[in-house]
Amino acid sequence: LTTPAYDALAAAHLQQHRFEHVLNMLHWDQAVNMPAAGSEARAAALTELEAHLHRLRTDPPRSSQLSAALTEPLDDEQAANLREMRRIRQLATALPEALVARRSLASSRCEHAWRTQRPANDWAGFLPNFEEVLEIAREEAQRLADIGGVSPYDAMLDLYEPGMRTADVRQVFEPLRAWLPGLIREVVERQSQEPTIAPRGPFPVSAQRRLCERVMALLGFDFSAGRLDVSTHPFTGGSPEDVRLTTRFDEDDFLSSLMGTVHEAGHGRYEQNLPRHWLGQPVAAARSMAIHESQSLAFEMQLGGHPGFAARLAPLLAEAFGPQEAFEPGNLHRLMTRVRPSLIRVEADEVTYPAHVILRFEIERALIEGEAKAADVPELWNLGMRDLLGLDTRGNYRDGPMQDVHWPSGLFGYFPCYSLGAMYAAQWFAALRHAQPDLDEKLAKGDFSTVFQWMDDKIWSQGSRWTTRELALRASGEVLNPAHFEAHLRQRYLPALR
Amino acid sequence: LTTPAYDALAAAHLQQHRFEHVLNMLHWDQAVNMPAAGSEARAAALTELEAHLHRLRTDPPRSSQLSAALTEPLDDEQAANLREMRRIRQLATALPEALVARRSLASSRCEHAWRTQRPANDWAGFLPNFEEVLEIAREEAQRLADIGGVSPYDAMLDLYEPGMRTADVRQVFEPLRAWLPGLIREVVERQSQEPTIAPRGPFPVSAQRRLCERVMALLGFDFSAGRLDVSTHPFTGGSPEDVRLTTRFDEDDFLSSLMGTVHEAGHGRYEQNLPRHWLGQPVAAARSMAIHESQSLAFEMQLGGHPGFAARLAPLLAEAFGPQEAFEPGNLHRLMTRVRPSLIRVEADEVTYPAHVILRFEIERALIEGEAKAADVPELWNLGMRDLLGLDTRGNYRDGPMQDVHWPSGLFGYFPCYSLGAMYAAQWFAALRHAQPDLDEKLAKGDFSTVFQWMDDKIWSQGSRWTTRELALRASGEVLNPAHFEAHLRQRYLPALR
Repeated sequence: LTTPAYDALAAAHLQQHRFEHVLNMLHWDQAVNMPAAGSEARAAALTELEAHLHRLRTDPPRSSQLSAALTEPLDDEQAANLREMRRIRQLATALPEALVARRSLASSRCEHAWRTQRPANDWAGFLPNFEEVLEIAREEAQRLADIGGVSPYDAMLDLYEPGMRTADVRQVFEPLRAWLPGLIREVVERQSQEPTIAPRGPFPVSAQRRLCERVMALLGFDFSAGRLDVSTHPFTGGSPEDVRLTTRFDEDDFLSSLMGTVHEAGHGRYEQNLPRHWLGQPVAAARSMAIHESQSLAFEMQLGGHPGFAARLAPLLAEAFGPQEAFEPGNLHRLMTRVRPSLIRVEADEVTYPAHVILRFEIERALIEGEAKAADVPELWNLGMRDLLGLDTRGNYRDGPMQDVHWPSGLFGYFPCYSLGAMYAAQWFAALRHAQPDLDEKLAKGDFSTVFQWMDDKIWSQGSRWTTRELALRASGEVLNPAHFEAHLRQRYLPALR
Repeated sequence: LTTPAYDALAAAHLQQHRFEHVLNMLHWDQAVNMPAAGSEARAAALTELEAHLHRLRTDPPRSSQLSAALTEPLDDEQAANLREMRRIRQLATALPEALVARRSLASSRCEHAWRTQRPANDWAGFLPNFEEVLEIAREEAQRLADIGGVSPYDAMLDLYEPGMRTADVRQVFEPLRAWLPGLIREVVERQSQEPTIAPRGPFPVSAQRRLCERVMALLGFDFSAGRLDVSTHPFTGGSPEDVRLTTRFDEDDFLSSLMGTVHEAGHGRYEQNLPRHWLGQPVAAARSMAIHESQSLAFEMQLGGHPGFAARLAPLLAEAFGPQEAFEPGNLHRLMTRVRPSLIRVEADEVTYPAHVILRFEIERALIEGEAKAADVPELWNLGMRDLLGLDTRGNYRDGPMQDVHWPSGLFGYFPCYSLGAMYAAQWFAALRHAQPDLDEKLAKGDFSTVFQWMDDKIWSQGSRWTTRELALRASGEVLNPAHFEAHLRQRYLPALR
């Protein structure tokens, strides 16, 4: 049995994977190392690389190979790989190379300027760059919409979570929007009666860094195939063979960098444990961004918010910073599950977090669908923050619509993945608890291996073998079911008083 | 007047420059950041990139464009640019893409293994990898020799110093080999009567790093367009717009990392001050590696070994490490000009340094010309070190033939550039002293601006506008004249006793 068309496609995807390695490393370097004056040269180099990758993805012979491979005797994994190859091809051919190059240049420039405009609260300086990025994103969305037969924002959602539509997101977010503000008030009220002892800083950066690396090791991160560095906006970059996590340090607050690192470690372990025998093929890539966020949030929220994690952490904190009353496990757990409406998404607790995501989903949908302009964003932001979290953000662009790197980088359609990920994470833990009734006892003893084993079996090792829907079904016996998320929040934050 | 062929070539070279930026950054990352397990993926990505650059450089339409451009109305700078374009094309087309890919893979693998084999003194483990790298280098040399009508080693020399031949190097090195051992003995004898006070360590890495960055700033390095990091083998990487220097720290010895940094800062300022209006074109690149080393050695040896530099440094050392008797400027200068035969090239003083280079030149010439085998290297090394420096290196591969990154990376023909660079540096300072008779007074006051101004006017701003020969003539009124180097050594190390 020979599969010449499939083999040619597989060779081409391996080559693409190598150029993606290059692109990912340069993006990481841009955020972590690059001095300011290197920006223009980097933007030009990245644009050249993106254009080259686009040419590889749209190379004309692929078209007939993709058709021919459909009739070749492929096994199930090869067939799954071919499905992903077809998707990559379809998305790539929807965009002309000139648009890809314009997008790369505009987003590099906008993001670079944003790095100084954000601390300066300079919305007026940011707006023209942002308008250009948005205009390009709208054109991209329209072209993808045309070939996909969906609306422009649906087409953008589909880039990050294949198959997910605006209607699906609304079906999940609308009930959430209804019960979340009430739940937040109830939890805040309940917690106001629980005293906590605040840790006393400063917490030296070098000690925080060592602590983060210890916790990453505890979470199974492989340092022979990855690193931890510092960037303005924490992220997971690199390639599966060399995973680059970032965090940022604040000498007054170690929990923020630590829990950010735990979040990225979830992404990192997913990448490090993708199936190696298919490395370089689309079927070996992470399933989708909602599934990716289900890993980061399984680590940060499900595991990180568990009393067993606080107990395991307590002695490490005493070693890192010297003993403090605040590090007592019960107090530490209360600190780590503190709910408080706040301005900054990445520092939000898991109860208020969905409010930040709903706000961004509503605004970016309107922007991409042409129902709102870039200049409208601050007002929409302020209205949304008032309704959802009762906060006033007027004039505070820095901690308002300029806080995230996504829009300046041209990423529209990504935000819903965070809350879908939180929901999947709750669903994974519900399934895991069902399969392993002693899970909480193990976690209480600081033994997290059951979690890692389950994630590896059900998620990491599966790569893109299945659609998200199939993956969820195989892992947990059901497709996305947001009831687990609500149950998790009520169980953790509003347990029946004993 | 239109120059369509030239314009097409210029656009193509700008594109190549962007891919070179990418390649340089990935090489830097490989040496500075990459975790061990990332090695294979990186080697594959670099090989893919090198093959792509090779395809760009050998793109068939260039051939007729290069001929057509010769008849176009070019100005002098365009004509110089075209000369460099023709050279790049000729070197690229001499090698088939498969050889470029094999070379990239073999050198990545050999260098990666060498990083652990060197500390383990594992010559036997290193040899098979090295044999493969050498075999590929010989094939490369033979192919370049065939098109250039020169010998294989001549062809390799020409890669780094265009126009330089083995006979030219011998003409310079043979007299040096004759007078150097005697001079070394005389200087060591003279210095044995000069007491020095040794600095007392340890010198914390963080303080050393701050000191290095202060000294780089003092030397005019632009930190908005570059960085200092740590790697096993110090080097200058990156691109002219974003220059990445590296050093390595030893808590017992701050002078080694500091003077290594001063060396790299010379390379760095050359790169940062190449002509910007031609950026991305071959005419804007550094002239050659001997000229590059003339900058690093002008900084490290000519300037760094000057009493005025020691005097400027003394208060910075006291600030970095606390006051010590050893930091008294006279003592510091004696420490910084200490001559002592030693095993390690990169730590050698400027008097014994040429012995290290002569040794490598003789061995690598024999290797490339097929007069010696890879397995012969330790014996040749030992004989050479005994004759040149009176040192026994038997069984010590680590501090013998395995000490440098060059051969494991497939770089043969580079080493002579260090000593040619030292000679040019002496020649530049002789010309500068002639033009500015108060130079030493200025340096004594810690004012180095005259040096930077001269280098910028004569070398940095000239890029590849002239051949090395023309550049030397324009800068100093004569072509390479090794008498300046000998005079410099005798004047600094054996002055008439007062």
